[in-house]
Order: sequence, then C-alpha cells, then structure tokens
Amino acid sequence: MARRSGRRPGSPDTREAILTAARTAFAEKGYDQTSIRAIAAAAGVDPALIHHYFGTKDQLFLATMNAPFDPAEVLPRIIDGPREETGNRLVRFILTLWDSPAGAPAAALMRSAVSNEWTARLVREFVVTRILAHVVKGLDLDESEAPMRTSLVVTQIVGLVMVRYIVKVEPIASTPPAQLTAAIGPTVQHYLTGDLPAGLRHAELPARTSATS
Amino acid sequence: MARRSGRRPGSPDTREAILTAARTAFAEKGYDQTSIRAIAAAAGVDPALIHHYFGTKDQLFLATMNAPFDPAEVLPRIIDGPREETGNRLVRFILTLWDSPAGAPAAALMRSAVSNEWTARLVREFVVTRILAHVVKGLDLDESEAPMRTSLVVTQIVGLVMVRYIVKVEPIASTPPAQLTAAIGPTVQHYLTGDLPAGLRHAELPARTSATS
Repeated sequence: MARRSGRRPGSPDTREAILTAARTAFAEKGYDQTSIRAIAAAAGVDPALIHHYFGTKDQLFLATMNAPFDPAEVLPRIIDGPREETGNRLVRFILTLWDSPAGAPAAALMRSAVSNEWTARLVREFVVTRILAHVVKGLDLDESEAPMRTSLVVTQIVGLVMVRYIVKVEPIASTPPAQLTAAIGPTVQHYLTGDLPAGLRHAELPARTSATS
Repeated sequence: MARRSGRRPGSPDTREAILTAARTAFAEKGYDQTSIRAIAAAAGVDPALIHHYFGTKDQLFLATMNAPFDPAEVLPRIIDGPREETGNRLVRFILTLWDSPAGAPAAALMRSAVSNEWTARLVREFVVTRILAHVVKGLDLDESEAPMRTSLVVTQIVGLVMVRYIVKVEPIASTPPAQLTAAIGPTVQHYLTGDLPAGLRHAELPARTSATS
C-alpha cells in the first residue's frame, strides 16, 4: 500500500511528490521533528525509495531547498583555525560562495525566502540547525548565549549579502573580498566571542524550554 | 498640448500616470538628474499639476515608493546629539519605525526591492540621496570615506530589519529594542566613525568622478 498504483517509482512525479512532502514537513515541524518515514507516508512512497533517491535526511533537506552548498563540507573551513579569526573566515567563506557559480542559486533562495513564508521557514531551519548549531559547538560557546550571538551574526551576514549581491549598493558591491572581510569580519567576531551588552548575557537570559537542550 | 484630452486632471488615472512616469525617471536617471518638467512631459501633464498633487520633487519621490516616513522629519532625531551615540540613535530609530504602524508598508517596500530591480533602484536612490547624504553632512564625515562607511552601515541595518521583521529569526525577533540597540548600535557607530581597515581609508580610495561632488 505504500506506493500509489498510478505513480511509477522512477518518474519525475515521484521525486517531486517526495520533495513537496519533505518541504511541507520540514517547514511545519522543523528538521529535528521530521522523519523520513513520515515524509514517505505523506508522499505515498516507500521510505527506502527516499533513501535511494536522496540519501540521508540531511541530504533530502538540502535537496528540498536547492541548497547551494553542503554545510558538512564547508563548516570545517569556517570552524577550524584560530578562534579569534572565526569572524574573518566566516565572512571570507560567504564572499567566496556568492562570488562563485553557487552564487546565483543562493541569490534565488534568498529572494524566495523574502517573498515566501514557507521558503523563509526552510532557510531559517537550514541556517539554525545545519550551520549555526555546528558553529556553536565548534566554538564551544555558552549555550545560553549562543542563540543571541549567532543571530546577531546572521544580521550582519544577511545584510552584507543583500547589499552586495541583491540590491547592489556601491561601493560594497565592488569592494575586493579581502578588504570587505577586514571591514566586516571583526563585527562578526565580536558578536561571536566579544562582550554582550547587559540584559543579553548568560545569567540574564530567560530559561529556555527543555525540549531543545 | 501638455494635457491629453481623454484624461481629466483630477482623476486617479492622472495621478497614477504621474507616479509611473516619476518611478521610471527616478529609477533610470537617479534623483538628482530627474526634473519635474521631464516627468510632466512623460506623463503628458502640466508641471504645475504635479506640484499641485505632490508638492516638491522630494515629496513626489517619497510618493513614488510609498515611503513609510519623510527623512526630512526624522533625520534631525538621528543626527542631533552626541556624535559618539549616533549609532545607537540610528538603530533605535529603525526599531521604533518598524515596530510602529509604518512597519507594514516598510516591510512591503523591502520585499518588493528584493524581487523587483526597479524598486531596488528606487530604494537605493532613496537611501543614498535622501538619508545617507544627510547623515554624512551632519556627522561631517570625510567625503572620500563616506560612501564606504555609510554602505557598511546599510549592511548592518538591512540585515537587522531582514532578520527581525522579514524572516523573523529568534531571539532577535523578540529581543527588546533597548537591548538590541545596545548590541548593534556600537557596530553602526564603528562603521561611521571608527578606524577603517587598510585599503579603505581616505588616501587609498580611488578618486571619485566629479559629477557627484
């Protein structure tokens, strides 16, 4: 009963049905609360077929949003190295990514996230669970401060991408990557490891729900 | 010959024709190079009618993009006061604006700028000539450094707005304005008046064209 009779397993329809079911599930329930089994049931296919087409749950998630890169491959390049230069490495990575052929699909994803609430949820889930969680772990940040620190980082990175690649404000749009990294890397570093203002430091943050700890 | 016979001056059609011609002109030629006379000719109306409906060129420009506020009114609140707290005042103003009823049209404008190249040009022109030019003047910034400084500010402000109001990433989306100002204001201040990295300082910047000086 797992496969619908009118849909051949190898057809584009099947792949699309899986992706649609996966997008819905990831956007509604988040990455952690979504299972391949539930997506398979929603798409009317066998779970083994999803693994066959897309690999792991992580790879399926990347496929649902046409992710322009696989965090598992690039995260070590950001995390590994002197802790005090993490901000520079992160900014350099972002500029390298967007200046590469992967920049066009990344721009498309960004535009879509702004106009479409569902894509926004997927991107948010992608950034939070696939990227920032690993950066937090790699930098050994205080867990209670990590969400604030990483979302401050996101404000600076998203703004940089918007201004340089989407709205193209000069001179940022044509500043060489090395100089832009020198200008913005320290901001990112400060948000990651510098002092937070009163009210946002460890002891002053509200207790988080136990579900995520 | 200035008015077309089939279009009554007071009709919504006339207003819309003027706005369409103005949007085209401002986006194509920029604010400074656009005249009311040229817009009137393109819309097929008398220049006096444009003044009657919209007031000054500045007010017409604000109308073309449904600007959520008039810079002339709010700029003094950002510029006036201790120079070293300009970053805080700017961030506080942005948060106050977006948390107010003007936040919804401002969000619509931002979404539109991301998906529409023409709106992007209008917003860019608005930000550069109507806001940043005045901030530069008010802070008495080095003119050769001003474009880099102000566009660095724009990266941080645009990112803050995107993350808090458009994509709504927590905890930024629900952090009290005072704490967010304390976290992000110093970044803006640093971009405005702090040291720029090598390659972006006064003497190292390429000469600008004389057209804008």
